[in-house]
Amino acid sequence: MGAVQSFREMCDRPKNTNVRLSLPAVCFVWQTAMIILFGVFIRYNEEADAHWVEYKKEKNIASDIENDFYFRYPSFQDVHVMIFVGFGFLMTFLKRYSFGAVGFNFLIAAFGLQWALLMQGWFHSLDYTDGKIKIGVESLINADFCVAGCLIAYGAVLGKVSPVQLMVLTLFGITLFAVEEYIILDLIHARDAGGSMVIHTFGGYYGLSISWMLYRPNLDQSSRLQGSVYHSDVFAMIGTLFLWMFWPSFNSAITDHGDGQHRAAINTYLALASTVLTTVAISSLFQKHGKLDMVHIQNSTLAGGVAVGTAAEFMLMPYGSLIVGFCCGIISTLGYIYLTPFMEKYLKIQDTCGIHNLHAMPGVIGGIVGAITAAAASESVYGAEGLINTFDFEGEYKNMAPTKQGGHQAAGLCVAICFGVGGGILVGFILRLPIWGDAADDNCFDDEPYWELPEDEESVPPVLQYNNHAINKDVAESNFTMEQN
Amino acid sequence: MGAVQSFREMCDRPKNTNVRLSLPAVCFVWQTAMIILFGVFIRYNEEADAHWVEYKKEKNIASDIENDFYFRYPSFQDVHVMIFVGFGFLMTFLKRYSFGAVGFNFLIAAFGLQWALLMQGWFHSLDYTDGKIKIGVESLINADFCVAGCLIAYGAVLGKVSPVQLMVLTLFGITLFAVEEYIILDLIHARDAGGSMVIHTFGGYYGLSISWMLYRPNLDQSSRLQGSVYHSDVFAMIGTLFLWMFWPSFNSAITDHGDGQHRAAINTYLALASTVLTTVAISSLFQKHGKLDMVHIQNSTLAGGVAVGTAAEFMLMPYGSLIVGFCCGIISTLGYIYLTPFMEKYLKIQDTCGIHNLHAMPGVIGGIVGAITAAAASESVYGAEGLINTFDFEGEYKNMAPTKQGGHQAAGLCVAICFGVGGGILVGFILRLPIWGDAADDNCFDDEPYWELPEDEESVPPVLQYNNHAINKDVAESNFTMEQN
Amino acid sequence: MGAVQSFREMCDRPKNTNVRLSLPAVCFVWQTAMIILFGVFIRYNEEADAHWVEYKKEKNIASDIENDFYFRYPSFQDVHVMIFVGFGFLMTFLKRYSFGAVGFNFLIAAFGLQWALLMQGWFHSLDYTDGKIKIGVESLINADFCVAGCLIAYGAVLGKVSPVQLMVLTLFGITLFAVEEYIILDLIHARDAGGSMVIHTFGGYYGLSISWMLYRPNLDQSSRLQGSVYHSDVFAMIGTLFLWMFWPSFNSAITDHGDGQHRAAINTYLALASTVLTTVAISSLFQKHGKLDMVHIQNSTLAGGVAVGTAAEFMLMPYGSLIVGFCCGIISTLGYIYLTPFMEKYLKIQDTCGIHNLHAMPGVIGGIVGAITAAAASESVYGAEGLINTFDFEGEYKNMAPTKQGGHQAAGLCVAICFGVGGGILVGFILRLPIWGDAADDNCFDDEPYWELPEDEESVPPVLQYNNHAINKDVAESNFTMEQN
Repeated sequence: MGAVQSFREMCDRPKNTNVRLSLPAVCFVWQTAMIILFGVFIRYNEEADAHWVEYKKEKNIASDIENDFYFRYPSFQDVHVMIFVGFGFLMTFLKRYSFGAVGFNFLIAAFGLQWALLMQGWFHSLDYTDGKIKIGVESLINADFCVAGCLIAYGAVLGKVSPVQLMVLTLFGITLFAVEEYIILDLIHARDAGGSMVIHTFGGYYGLSISWMLYRPNLDQSSRLQGSVYHSDVFAMIGTLFLWMFWPSFNSAITDHGDGQHRAAINTYLALASTVLTTVAISSLFQKHGKLDMVHIQNSTLAGGVAVGTAAEFMLMPYGSLIVGFCCGIISTLGYIYLTPFMEKYLKIQDTCGIHNLHAMPGVIGGIVGAITAAAASESVYGAEGLINTFDFEGEYKNMAPTKQGGHQAAGLCVAICFGVGGGILVGFILRLPIWGDAADDNCFDDEPYWELPEDEESVPPVLQYNNHAINKDVAESNFTMEQN
Repeated sequence: MGAVQSFREMCDRPKNTNVRLSLPAVCFVWQTAMIILFGVFIRYNEEADAHWVEYKKEKNIASDIENDFYFRYPSFQDVHVMIFVGFGFLMTFLKRYSFGAVGFNFLIAAFGLQWALLMQGWFHSLDYTDGKIKIGVESLINADFCVAGCLIAYGAVLGKVSPVQLMVLTLFGITLFAVEEYIILDLIHARDAGGSMVIHTFGGYYGLSISWMLYRPNLDQSSRLQGSVYHSDVFAMIGTLFLWMFWPSFNSAITDHGDGQHRAAINTYLALASTVLTTVAISSLFQKHGKLDMVHIQNSTLAGGVAVGTAAEFMLMPYGSLIVGFCCGIISTLGYIYLTPFMEKYLKIQDTCGIHNLHAMPGVIGGIVGAITAAAASESVYGAEGLINTFDFEGEYKNMAPTKQGGHQAAGLCVAICFGVGGGILVGFILRLPIWGDAADDNCFDDEPYWELPEDEESVPPVLQYNNHAINKDVAESNFTMEQN
Repeated sequence: MGAVQSFREMCDRPKNTNVRLSLPAVCFVWQTAMIILFGVFIRYNEEADAHWVEYKKEKNIASDIENDFYFRYPSFQDVHVMIFVGFGFLMTFLKRYSFGAVGFNFLIAAFGLQWALLMQGWFHSLDYTDGKIKIGVESLINADFCVAGCLIAYGAVLGKVSPVQLMVLTLFGITLFAVEEYIILDLIHARDAGGSMVIHTFGGYYGLSISWMLYRPNLDQSSRLQGSVYHSDVFAMIGTLFLWMFWPSFNSAITDHGDGQHRAAINTYLALASTVLTTVAISSLFQKHGKLDMVHIQNSTLAGGVAVGTAAEFMLMPYGSLIVGFCCGIISTLGYIYLTPFMEKYLKIQDTCGIHNLHAMPGVIGGIVGAITAAAASESVYGAEGLINTFDFEGEYKNMAPTKQGGHQAAGLCVAICFGVGGGILVGFILRLPIWGDAADDNCFDDEPYWELPEDEESVPPVLQYNNHAINKDVAESNFTMEQN
């Protein structure tokens, strides 16, 4: 009892946002650890190593163009832009949290991708002959994917946590992600090219659970800052558009060479186009006077890309992609209108960016669509070899039936949800400790605690200076001046 | 007479910008139609289908890297960025129409590309064996191109039309585009890699004709909003630069594999570089005190890319590209200085973004340059096989002389102009119906009618609140407060 | 004595920023010269020429995909984005110099790349059989690289020079660059894939020396404008992120096909990630209350990419890249905190963007890292063929030892520094002539002298209008209005 009591008291201390010791300490120690672990474990794979010229001869590879670099590097760069500009700028919509949005996004992505290379490497690309992880361009893409899960979670707690908390969120998020991914892709043998389950469902519920654990009953004290200004909404559109445009690269980045990448890009392109129209329709229909809401345009237009993630590499068919996008635009926009306020009021989940509508729900839909599409796969549609190729029916899965694959897909979805919710509660508990430097309830959504801000002429309210000693009966003679500081 | 009278009266009703029924209806109905038509007509082509592995063997294709995806996907993504970020942000320059610029651009592009896949598919990639359109990455690029024509037209009417009107403009624009493109490229056998004629000339005159039909005599009532603010001009530069940088990809995206793409990229790169210098020169020369005008820098610097569109894949030679760019920078900037005001005053064409100077004129120049370059082609410059490759002198055009090809190019240009002007007048007539929810003359260039706007601290004028009950003779004692709402 | 006297007097004349004659004259004359020189000298290389189809047969090239275009075009476009959006937007941080930052960056890059194609062509790709320079996609990348050196120098003098001065700075900068590059890469046979020495060290010291020559003792008269506002800092982050994300493409753009490009991308990716963490750590540690400084986040996070430029293509190993990034984040941030003020106060070097911390110092570090890594190279790590491939130990360098290569690398670094400092002093002397239209000391960091600025509602202070004739004893009856002009 005494321990609980003192823990409670500790949690109720006045907030101190000074991170002058904790933030540098975390950055230095973790970066040093990365260097040591990379030194012990990480090497180039045969396509990035100087021995490539010998490897090429040995394997009878005719040309340098067969190096995986040329298959995947353009997609990698698109994904990279999504992670840093896409996610970063999407979150700049708040009037006074643009530095934190784009800056902390930058910080945690830069840390996360290093830790992801290690975690994913141990699970997926450990070379048992020498105990080293061999990395190449595909590893970089996977690391960026892994980071995406944590950035999604950041969306739920945007403006309410300190950078140190975000680093902790990322450390655990990457770790959980790698385990969950290993279970879903390797043990369960589910397919998830664009990560509807592995990235979006996991990341979404991870963030929502953390936000639930960190519930702030008096957050309305910061409501003056929980909105956008005109230009911050335009900045956010930069994020939206780069995510939207490059999503076909995201979903096709690690699919099979040839038709796999080709088909995934087409499906995603179509699903996203369809989502835009239904998002606009619902946004207009549910607002007074039919006016569009920027929040919906910025976010819900992306839901189709999330939901087509798992099935993008399958023979979903162009119209199938359009249908998925159609539904997700509607569901996601309705989520912003009804579900987000409901969750805040009744479930005590404060979801700053509405990631439930953009990632969690569409991710679950994507998992279900993937399961159905997989279960419905047939040799007549895929061809015999195509079926094997697409679903990787090789080795121990040689004689697997597509219907069974559908079941495995569904199992994968459950694992993603469990890891998201469970992991989020665990990490949320850790983040409630009062040592992380988060801001008080009346000081959220504000860059001021963590950033040196420019003295901003435009945003300082004008002050009326009244020289009251000079005033007599006749006000017309008084010195009446107004100055803007 | 009575009908005309009542039509006039209908047109003179007070404007109602509420699109709460019409916009969702259009979006839902059209998107549903897309799904049905895609279901009936659209399938993957052999390079995106799961049968690729079998197709590869059948055709003796050695490697997955020969899939067209790897030849064109990087260019596709660049074009995609031009369509959504390039066109979208280029139009954000108005002080209070950035949401409409980037948001409606997003909406109509997302719709247009779906309709374009169908329209272009029926004309170009219909597989007569099964009645299906087979799409791949090249189809996606062509759909984006097709959309570009409509986005150009949007530039002329920016801030003066409702989103519903834009959807109608796009529906007809795509349809006209596909027909015009079929006539120019297939029937006339003109070449137009970067679409100087097919995209820019058509799109330019289409938009100008619509703007002429929608002439607003009292538009000066909105003049307070027809300008930029400092940061909106910086946003517009994002659009300019992404268009400028990726234009080499635009002009080379669908040219021949190998030297065709390579040469088109080089020519465009050079033409654009040259344009920047002459634009700066003219802008400075014609302003008081030699100051540069952001409108010119944002727009005229791109004219070289438009004008080199047709000839980019030809042996235009590096210096030829520089000359084209040189001339277009001058002509386009002078257009902004003299022609745009002239057209508004005397021709009753209100061209918000000056698309006549950026697209229509340079497009015509591009068509002419293409005709001349084609007519001047010779075996000594191209090589025998190079000539056949570049101009597609195969099948029924086997023995075509380059001079004759020049004539065909010129004929293509005429078709583009006719379709643009004719189509624009037709569609403009439809858009004059008073049912589309456009804004009144004193309410143009304003996001307010169609968007929920944030309460913007910075732009709301401070209000002096005066508590007049407390005032006596001595003002110094009064409660004199100023609040900012 | 008299001549010196009159030169001094000439230099002390009141400044006139009218460039209405000089700027157009420079643009027209130089662009015309470019056209003539391109006409005489520049042609397509065999991969961009229409004879490619014959060349392909002749050389037994199996597929169009072997065209260098497909190896390098995606990287080229990334580099292109870095040059125009990256450098351009990075410099928009000043509150009233965003037009100049992004606009003049655009102008001088567009000129510089043309001149670079000629200068680099004469030195590197002159075909002696016909006296022509043959260009292809690699030439475009090299031209962009060459321009980068001048844009770095622009960072030091940002806000203090006229566009005419910038054109002169670029003309000489490109010339010096091409000579220096020829000496370092060809004569000395140093390797410098990402240009740590050739681009960053040279560009950095070139700019710093010019700034030293143009020292303005009374620059504090413009101090009101030498800072950022909230949104200008967000714009600058666009520049930062596009530089950061695409730096792997920068460092790998012209490295060897296959493993060379692959490895360079990985090394750069890792070095940059590491830099972000140490930059954040130092920034927080050295500020009051641990708040982060946007200047550091915008700039120092990029230092790792600079410092890994030379060694990126070597077997630096993933942990080696992390270590380089780790150190550079620290050094660069400390540079902003201590060195920049020191240099301004004691060395009379005013460095607006802090290029010493972002380019010069990390460039030198990169040169040293490159020398050490080269000297330490061994057959056991690279393989026999890998060693030859990576260091180009062919022809007259056939039997060169890696240790000796290390010495050559160090010699290359010295050449870069000498060219930078020497060239900068020379060009700085020219730029001190009072004919270039630069602004007075109290008018720096301001777009007003060179740009037509929009009348910006938001930045005009509200004026209290007081109708004093209507006032009597009772103030409550007076017309008391406040208007915002």
